[in-house]
Amino acid sequence: MAVYIKAVLELTLRNGRFSATFARTTCIRKESTKASKLVYSEYGEASKVVRQESESLRIQKDHEITVRMLAAPVNPSDINTIQGVYPIKPKLPSVPGNEGVGEVISVGNNVKNFTPGDRVIPRYNAWGTWRTHAVCEATEMMKVSQNIGIIEAATLSVNPCTAYRMLQDFVQLSSGDTIMQNGANSAAGQYVIQLCRVWGINSVNVVRNRDNIEELKCYLADLGATHVLIEEELRTTELFKAQGVQKPKLLLNCVGGKNAQDCLRHLFKGGVMVTYGGMSRQPVTIPTSAFIFKDINAHGFWITQWNKDHDRSPEQEEMLQDITCMYEADLLKPPIHKLVPFNNYQEALENTINPKGFSGVKYILDFQC
Amino acid sequence: MAVYIKAVLELTLRNGRFSATFARTTCIRKESTKASKLVYSEYGEASKVVRQESESLRIQKDHEITVRMLAAPVNPSDINTIQGVYPIKPKLPSVPGNEGVGEVISVGNNVKNFTPGDRVIPRYNAWGTWRTHAVCEATEMMKVSQNIGIIEAATLSVNPCTAYRMLQDFVQLSSGDTIMQNGANSAAGQYVIQLCRVWGINSVNVVRNRDNIEELKCYLADLGATHVLIEEELRTTELFKAQGVQKPKLLLNCVGGKNAQDCLRHLFKGGVMVTYGGMSRQPVTIPTSAFIFKDINAHGFWITQWNKDHDRSPEQEEMLQDITCMYEADLLKPPIHKLVPFNNYQEALENTINPKGFSGVKYILDFQC
Repeated sequence: MAVYIKAVLELTLRNGRFSATFARTTCIRKESTKASKLVYSEYGEASKVVRQESESLRIQKDHEITVRMLAAPVNPSDINTIQGVYPIKPKLPSVPGNEGVGEVISVGNNVKNFTPGDRVIPRYNAWGTWRTHAVCEATEMMKVSQNIGIIEAATLSVNPCTAYRMLQDFVQLSSGDTIMQNGANSAAGQYVIQLCRVWGINSVNVVRNRDNIEELKCYLADLGATHVLIEEELRTTELFKAQGVQKPKLLLNCVGGKNAQDCLRHLFKGGVMVTYGGMSRQPVTIPTSAFIFKDINAHGFWITQWNKDHDRSPEQEEMLQDITCMYEADLLKPPIHKLVPFNNYQEALENTINPKGFSGVKYILDFQC
Repeated sequence: MAVYIKAVLELTLRNGRFSATFARTTCIRKESTKASKLVYSEYGEASKVVRQESESLRIQKDHEITVRMLAAPVNPSDINTIQGVYPIKPKLPSVPGNEGVGEVISVGNNVKNFTPGDRVIPRYNAWGTWRTHAVCEATEMMKVSQNIGIIEAATLSVNPCTAYRMLQDFVQLSSGDTIMQNGANSAAGQYVIQLCRVWGINSVNVVRNRDNIEELKCYLADLGATHVLIEEELRTTELFKAQGVQKPKLLLNCVGGKNAQDCLRHLFKGGVMVTYGGMSRQPVTIPTSAFIFKDINAHGFWITQWNKDHDRSPEQEEMLQDITCMYEADLLKPPIHKLVPFNNYQEALENTINPKGFSGVKYILDFQC
């Protein structure tokens, strides 16, 4: 707990030096009277195959609860699922959306662990969060703290958990150690930076060059990035030689291709690369000598599989509590995002497929507008 | 022990069915009176920079022993070391040769653990085995059983140990499990096949097509290979579908490039690839989806590093005893080899760099001719 308090102070000081802009918008809350959902009946381009439908909610049974959705993000994996190119293939027709937060508005007679007003998130992947209301088994949901924001709760189960597990499960990291990541401005990348700051780990963050690169560098430094390099700087950096920064023991890769190879060169002997994305659409190429003489170890990570393997485990419980505490202590911020009224879902779909401007903005469907 | 006895019987039966030819030659033993060594003073092509020199042995000290070399293989890594392209860079001038067996002919007054007549192998890499005699610290050598042949002893510390560790240290394999390897006719690959047979593990062995492919397939089947496929067969094989063979949990890769990628496709979910060579001179390319959705894990293995990290450890002791026992029980054969009189060392160097005919023949310097 001492570490957390120290970091709060640091965060405040940093906020004085850097100006991070959040695209959080407010909207006037209206009580929804009609239920509606997004649905798709065939795989394809999300903006074409997804349609909105009104629906009548079925009668809630004794072991069920009724949930009114508050917010649900549009993640790239949601789009890939709708396209039919993701390993998760829901039975069609299907309501898309893996993540989101809702409020319990009614509980069945046999339900003991929820009360109306509780905030809940789905326990399982492909639950279908892009709908205003749901009647579901109580066991399908888990409660989240009311002390964290709607955005924080809606995006709790994928990106911060991905960052948390990748930093915890592959290498024993101690305060003062260094990690490297590419695609550092990705949603998960932004959590990696913040968790590293909380845990006293140096993060070397690699991003692609872009028009507003200085703005992005400032934003990531404000989140807690120790170093931010564009790909070209990485190739000639003296960070690990002249500047004496400890070589990274862990490399988190969501890009692949040449970028991942360039990062890999700096990895500490015996280091670990964890691949959790492939934004370049190029595979991961590792020189034979890196395996044999540098003893590099390469793994993959997929939070969907981890959650499946660790459903209701102490590790899952501890992680969610830990992340919630960090949110409550103002040590974590959700990634840059834009709230979009549910009825304007097309804007969210299109911008997630073809991001415009400051890439890495997460679009979040807002059911309260 | 029961397993070993069973496997002896199997080996005998198999020998009746397949005819494996060994290029083991005999030669008339002459007592060497003069000491000589191979040496190189600059890195370069082995056949050009390595020369033979006579030498006078220095006076043996109280804690030293004098060894007369019996046999020493020429491994590809010896050639790479002489070329200066290996991570091990001995101080020049240097006597090449990492492996070999000698006979103790004299022991210093303070040496308790050796007696004349003992067979010994060097404990450390780059000891310099390509010499007729050596006076060295007793601690540099370790005793090997007199019950195994000279060839077996001379090649004990690299290839069988590489195969042994790769099968033991990365995946928990049980009898009935399947592994896959490429470059299956390599020296280490031949030990992998034999150890799998002893331990009841199915081996799927991939080799390049060649003129004498049927002869090679028979040879590997005779060693114990469960399946042998050429690269083209691997791409269309029904082994893991129609034929219902369990997918491999472990892939041993000494080739890289496209071959390794083709092998990787068949790996069991959560499987492990261990790279210990790169004969195609192409890096290892792994699709992002294999990491994320198939949870593939990729590691490297280098016996030199393992021996350094486990010098005099119980694991090392147990491994050498185990391999020795298998040799004594006739469960292991050394790879196809050719003995070359020490003075004809050029033949061994040239054929190791540019193998002719049945590739995978190991050239062994014979100091007894």
